[in-house]
Amino acid sequence: MKIDGTPYRSVWVDQADGWSVRIFDQTKLPWSLDILSLTDEDQVATAIRSMQVRGAPLIGAVAAYGVALALRTDASTATLDRVVAMLGETRPTAINLRWALARMRGALHNLPAADRVAAAYAEAAAICDDDVETCRRIGEHGLPLLRDIAARKQPGQRVNILTHCNAGWIATVDYGTALSPIYQAHDAGLDVHVWVDETRPRNQGAALTAWELGRHGVPHTVIADNAGGHLMQHGAVDIVIVGTDRVTRTGDVANKIGTYLKALAARDNGVPFWVALPHSTLDMTVADGVAEIPIEERNPVEITDLTGRTADGRIETIRVVAEGSPAANPAFDVTPARLVTGLITERGRCEASEAGLRALYPDKG
Amino acid sequence: MKIDGTPYRSVWVDQADGWSVRIFDQTKLPWSLDILSLTDEDQVATAIRSMQVRGAPLIGAVAAYGVALALRTDASTATLDRVVAMLGETRPTAINLRWALARMRGALHNLPAADRVAAAYAEAAAICDDDVETCRRIGEHGLPLLRDIAARKQPGQRVNILTHCNAGWIATVDYGTALSPIYQAHDAGLDVHVWVDETRPRNQGAALTAWELGRHGVPHTVIADNAGGHLMQHGAVDIVIVGTDRVTRTGDVANKIGTYLKALAARDNGVPFWVALPHSTLDMTVADGVAEIPIEERNPVEITDLTGRTADGRIETIRVVAEGSPAANPAFDVTPARLVTGLITERGRCEASEAGLRALYPDKG
Repeated sequence: MKIDGTPYRSVWVDQADGWSVRIFDQTKLPWSLDILSLTDEDQVATAIRSMQVRGAPLIGAVAAYGVALALRTDASTATLDRVVAMLGETRPTAINLRWALARMRGALHNLPAADRVAAAYAEAAAICDDDVETCRRIGEHGLPLLRDIAARKQPGQRVNILTHCNAGWIATVDYGTALSPIYQAHDAGLDVHVWVDETRPRNQGAALTAWELGRHGVPHTVIADNAGGHLMQHGAVDIVIVGTDRVTRTGDVANKIGTYLKALAARDNGVPFWVALPHSTLDMTVADGVAEIPIEERNPVEITDLTGRTADGRIETIRVVAEGSPAANPAFDVTPARLVTGLITERGRCEASEAGLRALYPDKG
Repeated sequence: MKIDGTPYRSVWVDQADGWSVRIFDQTKLPWSLDILSLTDEDQVATAIRSMQVRGAPLIGAVAAYGVALALRTDASTATLDRVVAMLGETRPTAINLRWALARMRGALHNLPAADRVAAAYAEAAAICDDDVETCRRIGEHGLPLLRDIAARKQPGQRVNILTHCNAGWIATVDYGTALSPIYQAHDAGLDVHVWVDETRPRNQGAALTAWELGRHGVPHTVIADNAGGHLMQHGAVDIVIVGTDRVTRTGDVANKIGTYLKALAARDNGVPFWVALPHSTLDMTVADGVAEIPIEERNPVEITDLTGRTADGRIETIRVVAEGSPAANPAFDVTPARLVTGLITERGRCEASEAGLRALYPDKG
């Protein structure tokens, strides 16, 4: 998508040197658009852990390049296995990370060492290109949901979508998952408006989704995570669309902490609750999301401290929790399939159930 | 309750001059304990609007003193009517404000002007004393709920209570509503632990509830508002207790934005959801809380900007929302009675229903 008129992807290989990997430092958004250069697998691991790159699909793509960077120094099978294991441990909840690393290992393992570096870059690039096409198609399959709502509106009424966290183009390689149908609807001339959940504690909604939508010109309003239920009670939300970090074969959805609360409110108010995902987010090995998906516990400092810009332009970090009070920071929750209206994938829409997923993905393990 | 060993109420008449009204500036907590002196009704209105005082019972008590301050200058009936009307408009959702002002007007209206100032101070003091005793009794009636949970625990297991916003002693004159049973349980030696919802956008949980509990020595952990559902899914919450700004005769509960989401999660996970309130929070004129209770829309700057303390001790205000993105700030939501396990009042516990409330309050209009 475009930033101030210039098209970008969220990860790319530097054209000057042909091998280093470029990303935006998403911890610096929305205040500055810093482009980082990653030159080895440890920098990739740090970028993932510190959330300089985040978003399940993007983490997978950047990890793939991390394998390529490691092999530049040593293309042995031992290094391949080591980097795949090491990067696989950087974050526990998103399954795309492990999917991308398994795909890299599968593509490279049987090759002679001398061929591995070129093949690794090619495979990482293919993962990125696939992600772009996948996300574009997610948008195509989500768009009819928004068109149907628009068709029921009076002239001058907007289609109001609520989203949580950031499942936009900077959470993927391009287009986004949850935001892809919204971008396509906006570009097609539909009068869409997005309620952007702030998404505490890391404020991916207030900082990233609002920034993305603003730069693309999509009307939106930032709200506290607490506000969505009230808005739904008063008819101000037509549909909820969120992304996800892992979907079980039964249709349970792991996503940013707080997603479950919005799903409950949607159900209580008859608002459709859709989840957008690429195939790489499916985990067919898990049946019970609440019991089985590991939930990352992040540093409590993400709760106690916030960074932003002062009125005179300085970037400051402030504590907002009373001194001496501890904090806990579970980063994801699991929304049971029974609360999910349906899934939007690159192959179409389906029920959040094993039957629904098997029908779309008969080839998935 | 005590701050560092010294007992306080949250509003009092200055002992030196015998007439000015003292409050804590709650917008400065937890970083400094600033005591403000209010000397006229306009200062009282500003303190309420700017949330230097907040919490439904405390707003009522301070407004009562606002009437006394206005009458010091002019004890006419015209001034009495004017100040009651003016202070009644300062905030729309909490009903205690109007209850306290109606009580003041009722007590003063038929008195000769010369007697009104002394009577106004006496009535405001009585409102405060009543509130203290009311809140103490709320604690007594809530305590058995916590004892019952404790009795089912294994040795070493804590009683985990989740609360939203601040319904502690600084939201009332003393003791608090939702926190009163918790203080009494802690003081009685029960092993209680409180999950403190941050409570965006004004962070009354992170800044005020955490501060209160910390100063009293009650174990607690601050969490993002998004986390409660996840904690309930995993058995980490035994009971939810919140305060309220207005309860309808049918048992619908207006409270800080986000309360409804926690009630939905509690219902979905079989966690009891209790609401603590004094009689002054009841509004027997309203039957449908979602449709009829006015919800205050506050300044969007409360969403976009946050104030806190830097590591080197400066108080800074930072913007946390992408530049140019608008925000919306509904301050309360309404939890339908069907999601409320019961109400804890100074007269005992009851079902959140007209039958339950009529049985406890046959004398209410």
